[in-house]
Amino acid sequence: MTKRLEGVLSPVVTPFTRELAPDAARFVRHCKWLLAHGCSGLAVFGTNSEANSLSAEERMMLLEELVQSGVPAGQLMPGTGCCALTDSVRLTAHAVKLGCAGVLMLPPFYYKSVPDEGLFRSFSEVIERVADERLQLYLYHIPPVAQVPITLGLIERLLKRYPKIVAGIKDSSGDWNNTQAVLNAFGKQGFDVFAGSEVFLLRNMRAGGVGCITAGANVNPHGIDKAYRGWQTPEAEALQAAIDAVRQILQAQVSMIPALKATIAHYAGDAEWSTVRPPLVELAAEQRAALVNALQAAGFEMPGIR
Amino acid sequence: MTKRLEGVLSPVVTPFTRELAPDAARFVRHCKWLLAHGCSGLAVFGTNSEANSLSAEERMMLLEELVQSGVPAGQLMPGTGCCALTDSVRLTAHAVKLGCAGVLMLPPFYYKSVPDEGLFRSFSEVIERVADERLQLYLYHIPPVAQVPITLGLIERLLKRYPKIVAGIKDSSGDWNNTQAVLNAFGKQGFDVFAGSEVFLLRNMRAGGVGCITAGANVNPHGIDKAYRGWQTPEAEALQAAIDAVRQILQAQVSMIPALKATIAHYAGDAEWSTVRPPLVELAAEQRAALVNALQAAGFEMPGIR
Repeated sequence: MTKRLEGVLSPVVTPFTRELAPDAARFVRHCKWLLAHGCSGLAVFGTNSEANSLSAEERMMLLEELVQSGVPAGQLMPGTGCCALTDSVRLTAHAVKLGCAGVLMLPPFYYKSVPDEGLFRSFSEVIERVADERLQLYLYHIPPVAQVPITLGLIERLLKRYPKIVAGIKDSSGDWNNTQAVLNAFGKQGFDVFAGSEVFLLRNMRAGGVGCITAGANVNPHGIDKAYRGWQTPEAEALQAAIDAVRQILQAQVSMIPALKATIAHYAGDAEWSTVRPPLVELAAEQRAALVNALQAAGFEMPGIR
Repeated sequence: MTKRLEGVLSPVVTPFTRELAPDAARFVRHCKWLLAHGCSGLAVFGTNSEANSLSAEERMMLLEELVQSGVPAGQLMPGTGCCALTDSVRLTAHAVKLGCAGVLMLPPFYYKSVPDEGLFRSFSEVIERVADERLQLYLYHIPPVAQVPITLGLIERLLKRYPKIVAGIKDSSGDWNNTQAVLNAFGKQGFDVFAGSEVFLLRNMRAGGVGCITAGANVNPHGIDKAYRGWQTPEAEALQAAIDAVRQILQAQVSMIPALKATIAHYAGDAEWSTVRPPLVELAAEQRAALVNALQAAGFEMPGIR
């Protein structure tokens, strides 16, 4: 078993060509930049990666490109949870076979108000079918988007049944009370809790969490890593305030993913980076200008980006 | 171009083996029973088909089995709308190539609160990439589940740009006012409106709609077809009341899809039909008993089912 991931992980945005095809070259370049500038791991194919706008084949192609390009599989935590059981099994088995440190798994998210029993069976079927003790499964709780929550009761059942496989959670509820409740219930039994946003990083570390997996790490990995490393120092609050400020600028746009891509496009001097797949829409020119002005006014930099 | 579908369409439930694999033999048998007992068309791979719990490959396999088994493609309206643009294109092109009468397309449903511009681009990209004038596209409006609506403004833009391709809508909002608004706005320009439930059948026909695509048609195609054919007769209200009564019994269960499958399992004497894929859960024994008792007390039959 590879070492458990901790620290700052980026749900890497997926670049597309103008023809809306996944762009493996830009993707590999961005992943390497992230690892060189503060990310300890890459949660590729998350919500911010437009992963659900990619087919299973496109995700597998990109993952293989990463590994073949020298990105260590031990630093990868690809998203593999789909609506279809067979897709989740296929992607998870593929990730484990490539040696990925873990997978970040959404619940099936088409049907709403499904019982915990059905979600337990969903995760359980994937684990049983993949049937590989190397699997490290991180649950992905993001009710504002998926609309299907991962409850404490579900975590408890899964941990009891698969204690060596169920490794942790990304809590993107945006609700600190939920993160605290998960930490209280499971934090002391080797269940790793990642905050779903850097705004909860310091609170999460102080409460026993292991880091964050956050959109903002796509553009500010250095800042967030500094806050992560300094969480026990006298500067902890100031470092947290600094990353909060950048996050606020990004969130001020109507949509986070286009804002992240516009930021990369600007600092890399590479306009094509702004491309998103439908149903997302890129920022309008005035939104882009407002974003860049705010970032520059805050003294924000992306050192070495291209 | 094949004749436009109208009347009663069933979003066919998808049978699974006990190992949770799609069961092509039972599927073909059920489709043929539906066409022989009142359905004018089959909206396979809808919400009630657990379509989003199937991979693209599984859907294509089942569709090919249907056509090869002699089910006329001209009576098929498969669901082909996925979260991933590339999957939607692949499934839609496959359906058109097989000669299907139309496709029923969900909007991409992972991201919520996306702008109409993004949804317009989603549908538009599929149409442009499939690039086949035989394509008849029906929009699938089901905000209670997809959480992503098809607005009047979006329909207007799509109809204006693709008047010969955009053929109609299934309105599963459960909100008659919305169906009425769609009929008022587009009903007179060859835009076919299907009610998403048989409870709106009579109102829809009187207001200029063309039929319904409804879960209940999986088990009561004969009753719903009778109400459809009789909508201009003095018995119209009584026929509507009769299908409402059956619908109420089905809806009394916690979950429609397991209730439909349990009903088929009972009347066909084939327990395996009850199987659902996670995250759905089959009815408990007492729920099943209550359902069957209520159907029998109402004199409900499924003539010729096996």
